Amino acid sequence: MPHNKLLTLLSDFGLSDVYVGVMKGVIAQINRSLTVVDLTHQIPPQNVAAARFCLMNAYPYFPDGTVHIAVVDPGVGSNRRSVAVELATGFLVGPDNGLFSGVLAKTTLSSNFSSEKQLSVVELTNPNYWRTPEPSATFHGRDIFAPVGAYLASGVPLNQIGRAIDPATLVQLDIPECTLTTNCFAGCIQYTDRFGNLITNISGSCVQGKNWSVLAAGLIIPATYTYSDVKYKSAIALIGSHGWIEIAINGGNAQLQLQMNLGDRVQVVLN
Amino acid sequence: MPHNKLLTLLSDFGLSDVYVGVMKGVIAQINRSLTVVDLTHQIPPQNVAAARFCLMNAYPYFPDGTVHIAVVDPGVGSNRRSVAVELATGFLVGPDNGLFSGVLAKTTLSSNFSSEKQLSVVELTNPNYWRTPEPSATFHGRDIFAPVGAYLASGVPLNQIGRAIDPATLVQLDIPECTLTTNCFAGCIQYTDRFGNLITNISGSCVQGKNWSVLAAGLIIPATYTYSDVKYKSAIALIGSHGWIEIAINGGNAQLQLQMNLGDRVQVVLN
Amino acid sequence: MPHNKLLTLLSDFGLSDVYVGVMKGVIAQINRSLTVVDLTHQIPPQNVAAARFCLMNAYPYFPDGTVHIAVVDPGVGSNRRSVAVELATGFLVGPDNGLFSGVLAKTTLSSNFSSEKQLSVVELTNPNYWRTPEPSATFHGRDIFAPVGAYLASGVPLNQIGRAIDPATLVQLDIPECTLTTNCFAGCIQYTDRFGNLITNISGSCVQGKNWSVLAAGLIIPATYTYSDVKYKSAIALIGSHGWIEIAINGGNAQLQLQMNLGDRVQVVLN
Repeated sequence: MPHNKLLTLLSDFGLSDVYVGVMKGVIAQINRSLTVVDLTHQIPPQNVAAARFCLMNAYPYFPDGTVHIAVVDPGVGSNRRSVAVELATGFLVGPDNGLFSGVLAKTTLSSNFSSEKQLSVVELTNPNYWRTPEPSATFHGRDIFAPVGAYLASGVPLNQIGRAIDPATLVQLDIPECTLTTNCFAGCIQYTDRFGNLITNISGSCVQGKNWSVLAAGLIIPATYTYSDVKYKSAIALIGSHGWIEIAINGGNAQLQLQMNLGDRVQVVLN
Repeated sequence: MPHNKLLTLLSDFGLSDVYVGVMKGVIAQINRSLTVVDLTHQIPPQNVAAARFCLMNAYPYFPDGTVHIAVVDPGVGSNRRSVAVELATGFLVGPDNGLFSGVLAKTTLSSNFSSEKQLSVVELTNPNYWRTPEPSATFHGRDIFAPVGAYLASGVPLNQIGRAIDPATLVQLDIPECTLTTNCFAGCIQYTDRFGNLITNISGSCVQGKNWSVLAAGLIIPATYTYSDVKYKSAIALIGSHGWIEIAINGGNAQLQLQMNLGDRVQVVLN
Repeated sequence: MPHNKLLTLLSDFGLSDVYVGVMKGVIAQINRSLTVVDLTHQIPPQNVAAARFCLMNAYPYFPDGTVHIAVVDPGVGSNRRSVAVELATGFLVGPDNGLFSGVLAKTTLSSNFSSEKQLSVVELTNPNYWRTPEPSATFHGRDIFAPVGAYLASGVPLNQIGRAIDPATLVQLDIPECTLTTNCFAGCIQYTDRFGNLITNISGSCVQGKNWSVLAAGLIIPATYTYSDVKYKSAIALIGSHGWIEIAINGGNAQLQLQMNLGDRVQVVLN
């Protein structure tokens, strides 16, 4: 077992309470040599779609074998399942509410999902790997997900953690697909970042090597290579660092200036 | 001495300045093998009561021997004492202003405080364990608490760090006790978390196995097991993950919707 | 090569997106034994001056050899240079936009900058040390600065990372110097911290051992030793923990109460 195995944490717990610190304490009680990295804890409360987006975009940048614990869990204490997923490149631990459907869609896109044996899933049914056999009804992050993640990162095999379930039964949370008409992709805003950049669900690969522009908020927004390619405070469209087409304002905040929000319609036109 | 000894940091420094990073630098200058975990740095400025609550709730989830450095310190530079406390299960380092009285009340509740020798306290009088013999008047976190914590986590015995003082002289900061009348506990809101959940000072153990409800904000709020047990946007009362009775809104923010704040009165009624 | 080499990260990425977590993933992909410390990620977007101030104040508190990666980068994707600097006491990695001019001014103040060989600078021209030879146009933090920093912290010599450049050509970002007239220093507010403390660009060494007061916002503000030396809610001037003269309110927020902001004029008068 390699040293310094990595765990990441993603949640909507914020940083003003001690919830995140407590999860790290629980992990350290199990194995002090694990390294824990925060992805973000400022997912808007109970916003599973935003969590799905963030995890999907961060996942590829971590070493093989990293365990990703994600807790945005409006159904905590209900009968929603708790799951752990083993991929060729890492592990996912959290509630079965669609949180992982972005990572799974991306990593299994080019392969045959069920035949490849790339994906094993268990429901977290074995309380030997929980912090306590009587977990809190409201904080499975502390009592189930953090300890299960710590044991997985410490080398416990997935099949000891719980009962195998069919990957096809995992909850899917798929945002509306972007659709193609003649020379035009129709999609929507799927995320806004801290700079106010508006990130669409239209992949940059759709326009690679072509001339294109974006229709949004009643404007024709020209495609550029980077933020500083146009004059200060102008709207631009570009392929963002995560690979999606995004709308930004050079030196400004596109969300505020264009008054656009999650789900708002966007078109990409090939010239 | 075990490897990877843990320190935790709790403060009101926020994360927009480099104060917290600087404390971690000072710790690493003393011992690079220590692992530092943030509990929270977003305690409202100078709010010792909130810090006391957070530390008390996080303390039990860390490995034995963890050193907890807490710096919410409105009296910095005055003649308030700097202290370090050694418990059977860990260490506390910070100003003597009541910050530690929650942890101490909880961990010593079932034992006889002074006779058990479970508790040793020193005033931080030995400048050999400070960053500099002439500490800043305004940042003891950097110049005294972080280095003292790093030395304790590295195995320096408590009695070298300073002069022993009587644990009974530590400043107490006790919130009003909840009181019991016939079939009714009267208490108050002692904390609100990032979700707007209102956390009372009435322990869940008061109602375990009984039927109960909460009177607050002019409402009778039914007890439930978890957030999703009632219909969307309804008020519920439950035993929170930290063991206190709390008021929440399924899918909403109880603090905003009920217009309740710290110190507001709450009653728990046994049916 | 010592174990547990430290890297610090400073940026304007905020903590609500996964940008910072992704940089840590990239670092771990290169070397899992590195320890990463966050200085702050809440620099106001694209505010190079605030980043310069924060890095300059944090730098001296880290162990020798620490690698500081700083990414406040309004010119990302343009032809601004990417650089790495080796000092006697550590490394700096980031865009060449003045971010490092505070650290460099401070650490080289007492020595002859160019003749001492204390300072080596390279432009990051060797893509073997990037995450990919085709870096994103908008996220050099992930694709260039994080990997270069991880390699430097792992012992790769500076001269392999890129082409040597003349330190004198680094972009300078110098705030207006404070000036001395008879018994009076004229300066300005260069930073406000989370408590609303107003930090000037007048060094505490100017007034050490003297009687002094501050003229600001139409008030004469008395010098004191620490926050609690005056009555509650009164304005005070003191030498802050970082060595600059600052204006604070005991138990309050000087920025709000005095309505002062970055760049506002301040005078320090020797009595």
